Amino acid sequence: MTEKLPNQITLAHGAGGKQTSALIHEIFAKYFDNPFLTADDAAVLPRPGRKIAMSTDGFVVSPAFFPGGNIGELSICGTVNDLTCMGAKPLYLTCAFIIEEGLETAKLDQIAKAMAETAQKVGVVLVAGDTKVVGKGQADQVFITTTGVGELLSGVQLAGAEAKPGDAVLVTGDVGRHGCAVLLARDTYGIDAHVTSDCAPLWHPVSAALEAAPDIHVIRDATRGGVGTVLYEIAHQSHVGIRLNAEDIPVDPAVAGVCGMLGLEPLYLACEGRMVMIMPQERANRVIDAMSAYPDTQGVCQIGVITEDNPERVVMETAIGAQTFLPEPGTELLPRIC
Amino acid sequence: MTEKLPNQITLAHGAGGKQTSALIHEIFAKYFDNPFLTADDAAVLPRPGRKIAMSTDGFVVSPAFFPGGNIGELSICGTVNDLTCMGAKPLYLTCAFIIEEGLETAKLDQIAKAMAETAQKVGVVLVAGDTKVVGKGQADQVFITTTGVGELLSGVQLAGAEAKPGDAVLVTGDVGRHGCAVLLARDTYGIDAHVTSDCAPLWHPVSAALEAAPDIHVIRDATRGGVGTVLYEIAHQSHVGIRLNAEDIPVDPAVAGVCGMLGLEPLYLACEGRMVMIMPQERANRVIDAMSAYPDTQGVCQIGVITEDNPERVVMETAIGAQTFLPEPGTELLPRIC
Repeated sequence: MTEKLPNQITLAHGAGGKQTSALIHEIFAKYFDNPFLTADDAAVLPRPGRKIAMSTDGFVVSPAFFPGGNIGELSICGTVNDLTCMGAKPLYLTCAFIIEEGLETAKLDQIAKAMAETAQKVGVVLVAGDTKVVGKGQADQVFITTTGVGELLSGVQLAGAEAKPGDAVLVTGDVGRHGCAVLLARDTYGIDAHVTSDCAPLWHPVSAALEAAPDIHVIRDATRGGVGTVLYEIAHQSHVGIRLNAEDIPVDPAVAGVCGMLGLEPLYLACEGRMVMIMPQERANRVIDAMSAYPDTQGVCQIGVITEDNPERVVMETAIGAQTFLPEPGTELLPRIC
Repeated sequence: MTEKLPNQITLAHGAGGKQTSALIHEIFAKYFDNPFLTADDAAVLPRPGRKIAMSTDGFVVSPAFFPGGNIGELSICGTVNDLTCMGAKPLYLTCAFIIEEGLETAKLDQIAKAMAETAQKVGVVLVAGDTKVVGKGQADQVFITTTGVGELLSGVQLAGAEAKPGDAVLVTGDVGRHGCAVLLARDTYGIDAHVTSDCAPLWHPVSAALEAAPDIHVIRDATRGGVGTVLYEIAHQSHVGIRLNAEDIPVDPAVAGVCGMLGLEPLYLACEGRMVMIMPQERANRVIDAMSAYPDTQGVCQIGVITEDNPERVVMETAIGAQTFLPEPGTELLPRIC
């Protein structure tokens, strides 16, 4: 029932007939093949061993290809990392494509390949998918929505409301790389800097951290809105203050340079492979030791502490002891970063 | 942290900051509120009792509002019905919105309301969501992807490859209404006919049928491509022939009229509330009795039988005994019907 694919995706590829079938066979089945992947209306899957976690995310990044990754990788990392934040081992993923008529078939192939490779890295399986094609000008190349089901680790209690005064605040690497890379890839600023996205699936390093310290209080991935937005959310949810040591915040020199030129705060640029992690201070070194063994989190470090002072605010302390409030996240600066 | 919503959705509503929070509170939380709905990265959910089924579907219907429903209702029905086809009780749903900048806030409110009402009808909960906003002209109003997890009924074995010669072929009501309603709502044909979509979630009537006859072989929802496409898929998967009795195929007179004028075959128009069901002939009456008690499936009837003859073909037999092959589904006629 399959036939060779043309160079561009057409409306017929989304109509559910022969061409849809050809697209599925020639691209999706080629990369996503696994015993659970379904050709029926739903995948039938073994019952998870414990409570489950479920998360969904739509990906609309523009441009779809950027230094360090593409929308395919991103769509797997985003949902894997959302499950990871809850201490849930990613088990099953679904993906739904909305494709603009005229997308180059080779691009879709690259995207699917990146998805399969990223999923394999984590050991999560793609079990079901869907493809819709919309007319030229009715979408921007390709949008992907992934949804994941994970199985909660036992003995773990993670939530944004669990931060306690005295806790250590860690980030798992330098901040703002993804947002900066996408910005530069848009080519509207004429800045010549080499910045690659930090896009990475973090289940393995985070599960190592949770094994080393099951009493971690909060894990959040710093995507849209960056580390700054996540910190303000945690400060609100836990009714605590957060004090950051400005000079401890890891920023790649190229990212810092771009931010300087454009007047951006790296703490508000999106990351796609960075977690904010909050835990009792006495656990911090154990977590840093566990995570720094993994390439994607080798830059893990402490950037601040949770305080009783300044509830619901984030304070930056500079080397000379000056304190300023990190401005509250406001209106959008950088749409379609993820 | 919430603030009143403006009349139109802006890019800021998708940026993850204050406006996103306002949108979530003023619309999504208002309608979707339930104990499992998460404000964290993933919802934490009780472990299902048995094997699970998982399905995803993107909805891009144009126009988003049509007689008999809107994209919100459709997005719940589609995924609920996909789980239903596998004999899985829908438990949890996620939804991801991709919204075009400038969408009227009141429309989004109506869509969310329809989603909540439809979910409630089935007893499925919306546990997690995501919102992205793309620039004007980068999407067509609103796209919704829903993903569902269900729990398999015990003792049920449903698949497209299970049809057996001698089996009865049923549809659960008149065919082609959804596709026809959307077509007319586009207002490009200047045809004045009153057709409403058949859009409906079918878990309750189908579970009643499975209780009455657990040995049903195939259940498929006849969405994209309609009943004709589904029948050809089953014929291929089960390596059987299908013989339809032309005069037994239920078609609303208004739908038949529109199809006549436009030269369309109702069997190839999308349904969004119709199942094709295949079972041992001796179970057919029991299934019809069980389902005809429900308003959404009161038109359930037998339209044909599975044959050894004509493997992988669908044959139409007319009142005077003439036989013709139903043409194989080919290229798209009607994109963006769901």
